[in-house]
Amino acid sequence: MSEVMEKSPVIRLDAADNVAVARVEIPAGTAVASEGVTALQDVPLGHKIATRAIARGEPVLKYATIIGFAGEDIAPGTWLHSHNVLVDDFQKDYRFSADYVEAQVLPEEERARFMGIRRKDGRVGTRNYIGIFITVNCSATVARKISAYFDEERLAQWPNVDGVVAFVHQQGCGMEMTGEPMDLLRRTLAGYIRHPNTAGALVCSLGCERNNLGEFFAGESLESGKMLRAITMQHVGGTAAAVEEGKRVIREMLDEANAIEREPVSAEHLMVGLQCGGSDGFSGLSANPALGKAVDILVRHGGTAILSETPELYGVEHTLTARAKTPEVGQKFIERINWWLTYNEGRDVQMNGRVSPGNNAGGLANVIEKSLGGSKKGGSTGINAVYEYAWPVLEKGLVIMDTPGYDPVSATGQIAGGANLVCFTTGRGSCFGSMPAPTIKLATNTPMYARMTGDMDVNCGTVIDGDRTLDEVGQEIFEKMLAVASGEKSKSEALGVGEEEFAPWPIGVTG
Amino acid sequence: MSEVMEKSPVIRLDAADNVAVARVEIPAGTAVASEGVTALQDVPLGHKIATRAIARGEPVLKYATIIGFAGEDIAPGTWLHSHNVLVDDFQKDYRFSADYVEAQVLPEEERARFMGIRRKDGRVGTRNYIGIFITVNCSATVARKISAYFDEERLAQWPNVDGVVAFVHQQGCGMEMTGEPMDLLRRTLAGYIRHPNTAGALVCSLGCERNNLGEFFAGESLESGKMLRAITMQHVGGTAAAVEEGKRVIREMLDEANAIEREPVSAEHLMVGLQCGGSDGFSGLSANPALGKAVDILVRHGGTAILSETPELYGVEHTLTARAKTPEVGQKFIERINWWLTYNEGRDVQMNGRVSPGNNAGGLANVIEKSLGGSKKGGSTGINAVYEYAWPVLEKGLVIMDTPGYDPVSATGQIAGGANLVCFTTGRGSCFGSMPAPTIKLATNTPMYARMTGDMDVNCGTVIDGDRTLDEVGQEIFEKMLAVASGEKSKSEALGVGEEEFAPWPIGVTG
Ligand SMILES: [Ca+2]
Ligand SMILES: [Ca+2]
Ligand SMILES: [Ca+2]
Ligand SMILES: [Ca+2]
Ligand SMILES: [Ca+2]
Repeated sequence: MSEVMEKSPVIRLDAADNVAVARVEIPAGTAVASEGVTALQDVPLGHKIATRAIARGEPVLKYATIIGFAGEDIAPGTWLHSHNVLVDDFQKDYRFSADYVEAQVLPEEERARFMGIRRKDGRVGTRNYIGIFITVNCSATVARKISAYFDEERLAQWPNVDGVVAFVHQQGCGMEMTGEPMDLLRRTLAGYIRHPNTAGALVCSLGCERNNLGEFFAGESLESGKMLRAITMQHVGGTAAAVEEGKRVIREMLDEANAIEREPVSAEHLMVGLQCGGSDGFSGLSANPALGKAVDILVRHGGTAILSETPELYGVEHTLTARAKTPEVGQKFIERINWWLTYNEGRDVQMNGRVSPGNNAGGLANVIEKSLGGSKKGGSTGINAVYEYAWPVLEKGLVIMDTPGYDPVSATGQIAGGANLVCFTTGRGSCFGSMPAPTIKLATNTPMYARMTGDMDVNCGTVIDGDRTLDEVGQEIFEKMLAVASGEKSKSEALGVGEEEFAPWPIGVTG
Repeated sequence: MSEVMEKSPVIRLDAADNVAVARVEIPAGTAVASEGVTALQDVPLGHKIATRAIARGEPVLKYATIIGFAGEDIAPGTWLHSHNVLVDDFQKDYRFSADYVEAQVLPEEERARFMGIRRKDGRVGTRNYIGIFITVNCSATVARKISAYFDEERLAQWPNVDGVVAFVHQQGCGMEMTGEPMDLLRRTLAGYIRHPNTAGALVCSLGCERNNLGEFFAGESLESGKMLRAITMQHVGGTAAAVEEGKRVIREMLDEANAIEREPVSAEHLMVGLQCGGSDGFSGLSANPALGKAVDILVRHGGTAILSETPELYGVEHTLTARAKTPEVGQKFIERINWWLTYNEGRDVQMNGRVSPGNNAGGLANVIEKSLGGSKKGGSTGINAVYEYAWPVLEKGLVIMDTPGYDPVSATGQIAGGANLVCFTTGRGSCFGSMPAPTIKLATNTPMYARMTGDMDVNCGTVIDGDRTLDEVGQEIFEKMLAVASGEKSKSEALGVGEEEFAPWPIGVTG
């Protein structure tokens, strides 16, 4: 015990909080020097201890956010949980824009820099891929065979090309001919094709599919040219001919794709998709708030971060609407929440506004506290826009994109929106990776990090160990963003993970 | 014209029909010798000509099926279309089992044989694969990397193993925890794992997914053993360790997988999934009815054929219910039709009971005639069972499995049900292939066959050309089934198509 107690037994999530969270079991009577309090009761791991006196009816603040109100007069050192942290109906008050504060962005010359790839349209890439896309699953094998041909050996003479990657999927026909399912598929594909990390693109089509190639190009204002090619299998004579034609046109693209040079650019060109998957009880205490700290730094340096996974934000929508730039931005988020409530009707999914018994035992008093743990990946700044799935992200700072919580589908929407980096927190140990934007993985706890070091980029478990603060880990994550954006391979990237994880949201019927 | 007219200008779809179909434009006055009639009007390509007198109110028979009733007294040689072929409400009468005739199956010793692979459970394989499966998309990269390692060179010493194939998908988490979507995914995976063409299987799991490995194995009564292995990435230490472990366990399976010998077995062990995709105006005149002839032969030899693509059977459900073995079998089909009507509500899909103007111009008088063209893939025998998607097919003869029309999803359901061969008709030129059961592709017309010979196994366009009868082409297809079942590579198989086309039906929400 004495070893442990040399470090503070609690984690302070925000300077404004009147609680801290036990990172180990704290027996009654333990002095918590860092907070100047002594535990009045046993405080289990993951549970809260009052760091100040809180009068009955006063807000209880965690992550600088109201998670409930004191049910009685609370003395410093008191164990806080569902019995003395009460929630009333205040959370129904969206307080649109009431808490919005415009982020203080550093002047250009003071912003951090990374080595980026400047594209003609002014956007900046972090990688340099040639992507092979398909209108329909019927051309998936052709795409794969072309991609497989361009292996490391064959690409050796174009060292600036990070790879020739096939982004295959299972949609494109047997689906609704018009409406959101087709629109969503098309804007996802177009977002990848236009992505600043995509130097050139080949689109493989069969010829008779509902996701008609010509309509897709016209609808998305894509224009064929040297660096955007299309092949229709039924026109060129089938599988073998399409593969040969694909190799030929990609060979024609490689010189131009290779002709890039990385140059120092400001961090304002970073657009980071925020993800979590395989969460555990530590996610909300280490990796998520540490990533939030990094996002706050990123926003100060002019960059963009995309918070998503709407079903997991249910419960804290009022904290997000209050931080929205305008009431319209907040309202748009509420519309998406309502859309999800309809989509999920009668389905066995976890979007019920309740906390599971396991989560409650782990220290989460209510759904606000639970969803806050996830939403803190987004840090503390104002929310400048809300986008639907795979829409181009144009605003800077913190924005929301409505996506499912499912990792590959969510990250695919963010990358289609323009994310050139993904930061992914995980407690159980997800091995997710992505292309053409690389994924950085953030472990919530040291034992998992040690077990899966080959897949994890940053160990945020040091916060749980009491060795580092959230601010320190946040700074490390921000630096890792700059390094990976500059070309340093993330762990998943080095392992070659990311080609299978392209997964446009299958939102319609399959007929 | 004279060259064309040396051959009959019509196609006789069934001996019982009182119509034939023009395979070329037939000018008024043309003698149609094969039918002993002279055209009284111009008959456009694909349209019908009366081959006998049909009194007003008498049924018009095409494919030996009532497609409507004569609206007037019809003389032989009359052009028949919507103006004189009328439909009343008779099609609402399901006449459950009224037309069922038990198929006359040849005695064992007279049945055709193929060189099959007898498995311990008595089922017979047509191929010999090791399959790598995933519980969730999060283990897709691991599965792919293991499969990629076992390339032709590394497998050379196990010549009886057709391949080590990764069957990846995008589901397994972010989906409903219980209910049909999860059940369907699990029975699809289990159907492939237990498939007679699967000599051994490795299941890769992440560890924290909703499609929990242990629950999946227990629910599907799968038992780990030498030839069924499982790896959990979070247990073995992540991506790289899982790939190494996967290689190791597959190496342990290869000797046993290789120890098979093909032996002559009766055609009763053939189970053929029937598919069409990229249809054209010839589909219903050549490839589909020719495949139907082959299926009738197959059924006579004791084999099984699976008719699917329910949305495309809408319109002829009464002809199928009448052929059902029991009223219960017919009723089950109607239940599936009704399920689809609900599933498609408000969606922009083609399941509306109407014929498009293009189809009408092409000679299809009504939806019965249109859907008949697709359903004739199933031939003419009784329907012995109706299965839901991916359920194990246990009945012999012609059966129905409810699937979407979308090719990869439909074929995946049939293969999961046990199909060890797929026969796929196409007019526009689909390049579909499948594993572990190979696909034979049947071209509806000669120009497409000539253009895409590398992808097409049989040219049914010879029927349209007037060079062969449906019976002759049906016999050729049946012989091709036996040859491919015996190990002859189909075109798609030789091209290596089939790994990307594994596509379990995504039937639920993605949350
Ligand atoms: Ca490649
Ligand atoms: Ca997630
Ligand atoms: Ca994919
Ligand atoms: Ca392989
Ligand atoms: Ca189809």
